Amino acid sequence: MTDADAARTSAPSHTLEAGATNYAGATAPGAVDLTRLYRPRAVAVVGASANPAKLGHQILRNIIDSGYTGQLYAVNPKETEILGRPCYPTIEAAPPVDLALIVVPAQAAVAVAEECGRHGVAHLVVITAGFKETGPEGARREAQLVEICRRYGMGLVGPNCLGVIDTHTPLNATFASARPLPGSIAFISQSGALGSAILDWSQQQAIGFSKFISLGNKAGLTEVDLILDAAADPETRVVAAYLEDVKDGARFLQAVGEASRRCPVLILKSGTSEAGGRAASSHTGALAGNDRAYEAAFAQTGVLRVQTLTELFALATAFANQPLPKGNRVAIVTNAGGPGIIATDAVERAGLAIARFTPETIKGLREKLPAECAVFDPVDVVGDAPPERYRIALDLVLQDPGVDAVVVLLTPQVPTRPPEVARHIVESRKLAPDKPVLVSMIGGQLVQEATEYLAAHQVPSFTFPEEAVTALAGMYRYARRRQRDGRVQATDVDRLRPDEVRSVFRAVRSEHRRVLLGPEAARVVAAYGVQVAPSELARTPDEAASIAERLGFPVALKIASPEIVHKSDVGGVRLKIGSADEVREAFVAIQQNVAALMPDHHFYGIEVSRMMPSGQELIVGMVRDHQFGPLLAFGMGGIYVNLLKDVSFRLAGALSRADVEEMIQETKVYQLLRGYRGSRPADVPALQEALARVARLCLDFPEIAELDINPLFAYEAGKGVVAVDVKITLG
Amino acid sequence: MTDADAARTSAPSHTLEAGATNYAGATAPGAVDLTRLYRPRAVAVVGASANPAKLGHQILRNIIDSGYTGQLYAVNPKETEILGRPCYPTIEAAPPVDLALIVVPAQAAVAVAEECGRHGVAHLVVITAGFKETGPEGARREAQLVEICRRYGMGLVGPNCLGVIDTHTPLNATFASARPLPGSIAFISQSGALGSAILDWSQQQAIGFSKFISLGNKAGLTEVDLILDAAADPETRVVAAYLEDVKDGARFLQAVGEASRRCPVLILKSGTSEAGGRAASSHTGALAGNDRAYEAAFAQTGVLRVQTLTELFALATAFANQPLPKGNRVAIVTNAGGPGIIATDAVERAGLAIARFTPETIKGLREKLPAECAVFDPVDVVGDAPPERYRIALDLVLQDPGVDAVVVLLTPQVPTRPPEVARHIVESRKLAPDKPVLVSMIGGQLVQEATEYLAAHQVPSFTFPEEAVTALAGMYRYARRRQRDGRVQATDVDRLRPDEVRSVFRAVRSEHRRVLLGPEAARVVAAYGVQVAPSELARTPDEAASIAERLGFPVALKIASPEIVHKSDVGGVRLKIGSADEVREAFVAIQQNVAALMPDHHFYGIEVSRMMPSGQELIVGMVRDHQFGPLLAFGMGGIYVNLLKDVSFRLAGALSRADVEEMIQETKVYQLLRGYRGSRPADVPALQEALARVARLCLDFPEIAELDINPLFAYEAGKGVVAVDVKITLG
Repeated sequence: MTDADAARTSAPSHTLEAGATNYAGATAPGAVDLTRLYRPRAVAVVGASANPAKLGHQILRNIIDSGYTGQLYAVNPKETEILGRPCYPTIEAAPPVDLALIVVPAQAAVAVAEECGRHGVAHLVVITAGFKETGPEGARREAQLVEICRRYGMGLVGPNCLGVIDTHTPLNATFASARPLPGSIAFISQSGALGSAILDWSQQQAIGFSKFISLGNKAGLTEVDLILDAAADPETRVVAAYLEDVKDGARFLQAVGEASRRCPVLILKSGTSEAGGRAASSHTGALAGNDRAYEAAFAQTGVLRVQTLTELFALATAFANQPLPKGNRVAIVTNAGGPGIIATDAVERAGLAIARFTPETIKGLREKLPAECAVFDPVDVVGDAPPERYRIALDLVLQDPGVDAVVVLLTPQVPTRPPEVARHIVESRKLAPDKPVLVSMIGGQLVQEATEYLAAHQVPSFTFPEEAVTALAGMYRYARRRQRDGRVQATDVDRLRPDEVRSVFRAVRSEHRRVLLGPEAARVVAAYGVQVAPSELARTPDEAASIAERLGFPVALKIASPEIVHKSDVGGVRLKIGSADEVREAFVAIQQNVAALMPDHHFYGIEVSRMMPSGQELIVGMVRDHQFGPLLAFGMGGIYVNLLKDVSFRLAGALSRADVEEMIQETKVYQLLRGYRGSRPADVPALQEALARVARLCLDFPEIAELDINPLFAYEAGKGVVAVDVKITLG
Repeated sequence: MTDADAARTSAPSHTLEAGATNYAGATAPGAVDLTRLYRPRAVAVVGASANPAKLGHQILRNIIDSGYTGQLYAVNPKETEILGRPCYPTIEAAPPVDLALIVVPAQAAVAVAEECGRHGVAHLVVITAGFKETGPEGARREAQLVEICRRYGMGLVGPNCLGVIDTHTPLNATFASARPLPGSIAFISQSGALGSAILDWSQQQAIGFSKFISLGNKAGLTEVDLILDAAADPETRVVAAYLEDVKDGARFLQAVGEASRRCPVLILKSGTSEAGGRAASSHTGALAGNDRAYEAAFAQTGVLRVQTLTELFALATAFANQPLPKGNRVAIVTNAGGPGIIATDAVERAGLAIARFTPETIKGLREKLPAECAVFDPVDVVGDAPPERYRIALDLVLQDPGVDAVVVLLTPQVPTRPPEVARHIVESRKLAPDKPVLVSMIGGQLVQEATEYLAAHQVPSFTFPEEAVTALAGMYRYARRRQRDGRVQATDVDRLRPDEVRSVFRAVRSEHRRVLLGPEAARVVAAYGVQVAPSELARTPDEAASIAERLGFPVALKIASPEIVHKSDVGGVRLKIGSADEVREAFVAIQQNVAALMPDHHFYGIEVSRMMPSGQELIVGMVRDHQFGPLLAFGMGGIYVNLLKDVSFRLAGALSRADVEEMIQETKVYQLLRGYRGSRPADVPALQEALARVARLCLDFPEIAELDINPLFAYEAGKGVVAVDVKITLG
């Protein structure tokens, strides 16, 4: 059992009579207490209706049908009782409540919220639509709602949402027609319609939920609040979320990493495509962020990103029911070769490994199985296998120390008897309860009883072998991530000179520029401890010559200009200049070239820089993401940057040492840095340091909109890195 | 309607009474006539049994239960009647039969086959196991079986298989317990167990098959025969195959391209991984081929390769029921934003495009839908949509000329009434019967009636939006491929001098070498019209100097040796030599370096070659695949070959001009060849010509085991390409 599993075995201490208490584990930084949202002592439905066609009726009925045992009130000035529950003209006329569900029209919702605030309501769930998603007037209304909740300290779910469910309270405060089964998946959906469709689908699939929450417009509580809460919930073993955006990127980066260590967090983030992004904005008013930044945010917080709904629930089901694998070595037990090969392919494709059994296991399989069975992984008990043969194979491979997980495959053949095989799987698992076992029984009617039995005994089963393997691969990815996260260290850097950066920026601003000149940009990164090629700005040929003599030959001369992007195209660059006289000549030549081609060009001067010995050309860059802040890029530099796109990304806001290491290692140029075909390894530690320093610089100075070091030369081990060309644009 | 669809609308002319006739369309090159296999006038089960537990009983019963109307006989010396059918002691005692199913033990099967041959049986289906898959003795037995079938001209399915089904005959001659529904998918499986599991699963999914065939050991009829036949079958609209290998690569390359133009062919090829390959060999005795070669073989024959069983049947269902899209512009109609965004993401990911509606469509949607609906793609009829609103949207977008396909999404909400929406979809489709419509209704019980209605009306529906989009993307991929294949042209090359190649190879063989020296390899490719850097072998310093003077300076000197792979590592290379004296010096230096480091090295001489001006460095290579023949490689050359792996592959055995163009275009280096950042475009036509010539060379000389041209320099347009370094190894 994992630590997190152990943490979740203790039953919740909360009882309705004793009043609101925290979950045992709800100690995540910045976590909001949602006990009175999911486990309210009393609930009011404001806008409850006696008409069964109205949402205000359906919600009341769902709460009653869910078996909610707390107090339940209706609020509606026209009734005195609905569905056997007392009805009050206003919320303030009702007894105290923890949770108020608002179903009144949007025009009235703000006033009702104010009344709820005065009445001491802890949480509002605003089902009502007609807010930000409808335009400026709705946005104003939403702002009023938020202001009221802030003023009274009320939690706010929605507006424009389906409601909330806690199957363990139990409480179903939604207008969904399906009733979810209890389970240990917390499902968070930014689309109410999708949420309700999934609830209906989940019943047929026997998938159970601990909680369901519809985020709506996320005006109050956001995905971060709900993820943190769910990850700390003892009834929840996995969080599965459908998101269209992340509202507060900084808080997400800061808090979700810790939550995902406690409990796996799966996210399907839609709106990844350009067109998808358009659809997202037109639908929820959410501004879909740059997908690269999301990719980095999820990777750095340990969130498992999935690409499809199928994958979301395949993984959720596996996490909900099985322990995490300790490694990636998979044993496959099958009664048919074909599915065994398909599963083997999937294992390799997913980055898992086929287990190598110990001699004892192989000996045991040889002795106890008929000669025609395959005793190496995959174990093929062959088509005529009676159920007992599965048991023999399973007992042996589950106990093999070289096996971290088992995938059981079955095709229904004449002697197979799938239900008996299912019982053997459940029994055999007890021999190694810390190893995950996933099943694929391919078939329809012939395997139905067996798969139902497995579901009832917490063994996830899938129609096809690839699905089982994909789910297992996700579990392994999470397990490895969690192991690695044990050594998270912040990337501390020292010897920084922020005052110097400030003074450069002041000077640039005073000239009403946004783009820094080369020497200015170099000074900025140098102030944060990144070694740069020495360079200075010269205004005259003689000044250039004396700078060159001071810096040392050879030097490069480059026109200094924020306007000229491709400096060599206008004759603005001269390289490898070896003497003071040549410097003077080159200065004049550049000046003339530029003056001829761009007569209106403002002459700032010419940059004189010492030419550095060649190193491996790299790029280090930063663009600022509007949700997650500085997004750092690293990769192969030089002219092939855009062609090869060998670049990795990380967010500076949550940059651990491990992230810095990984972002270097996941590029192809890393093969060169490690020493390729006999070349010497490069100074990777110096490169890591430089990346951490650039990250710090971009965090400390939000006015830096973009930064590009291309190339950064990496030299051999011990000889450092040097920024040869630096570009900085201010916001 | 597509041409192929039109070709399939005519009913089969075959009647059982009239005797065996060809399918109307069975004219594919090399196609075997399988009419008497799938539509036999009389069938015998040799090894039929009265014991219901025996396969020989189950097959007989399945044939009867399937409604087979031809003559049916049992063969078993111990019985006179089984299941009401006459039983004969031997096949020769029975009336004539077209198809004999053999279920007797392996030891007896060979003798039975001989009897069948004498009796004039057209096809044998050998269910019996115990052949090649069991070892050398079984392999011998299998060879006897094949020899008998060859001698009598009998078709052979298996041995070691599940049997065959034709739902339109009808005939179920398998021992599978599930009975497939009739339909238009021909399913070919190299795994009998998987086949039978899928048949069971398909019933629950309402997926129908035209044919099912279990390949077994493929001793007689292979996947190629069965694919060709199925593709020509008027009852079949799509071929779906699970394969572990391809038996006859040359025939596959030659014939499947034409078949896949008539009818989509989907293949799940397993054993792609190293470990998967191991499992494949140990299971079926099949030697899993190199996956790169399979990848190329499928691409070049227009086969749609799928990676999972889910994808195989999602695509098969779509192809079986819907017309092909004419383009990639997809309209999405949804009643919820979330699924719309998910589908939009999937559309972009799959290389499809979100449609841009005409102003008329947008105007129509604006006028007829409520204001809160989204009228751009995706069309959101919003959650309160009654079924009619779907109809309005569908009618408009289906008739939009800018829409090639429609994906309809539904989440069950209060006013939704899914069955009515389903009826509207079926009706609306009639407005544009040539456009595919795929559906995803997310939910369980609430959408079940609707999805059943859709299935009954040939509208494929999927649980999640991504699955519908993936299926559509496969259809588009196929449609585009078929359009393109219209302009297939072979890559003819002329001015070849095979005699010169032969004489080089003779000389090499006479020295008992397999690796050619540089000048020899250069002569070989030059004989096939590929321009090479001039080079000759020198044995003495003076000879080297005179060669250099003849070739022109600068020259390179390289130790000529089949044994030394990294020539520069042993001081065996000198570049940019500008004079005869320097040549003599360099000759001596190289000789000394090599003698010092490798005293036992046999001195063949030193290669003198003219140094060519630098061009874009490319690699052109060939490795010989044991199933598909020469596998051509093209990509970025130079020292980064192994790092960047920017290489594409094609099989020389089916190389069209389009393939040559594509293999160049799909590399990243193509961006450079086209002219990158102001550089001039390279001579791509000359490069295509060189690739075609290398392909021809490798086809003409099967003794070439490996060939490498690295680098090949490409110069700017009109200036050709030149092979700088050529390596050839003979088999």
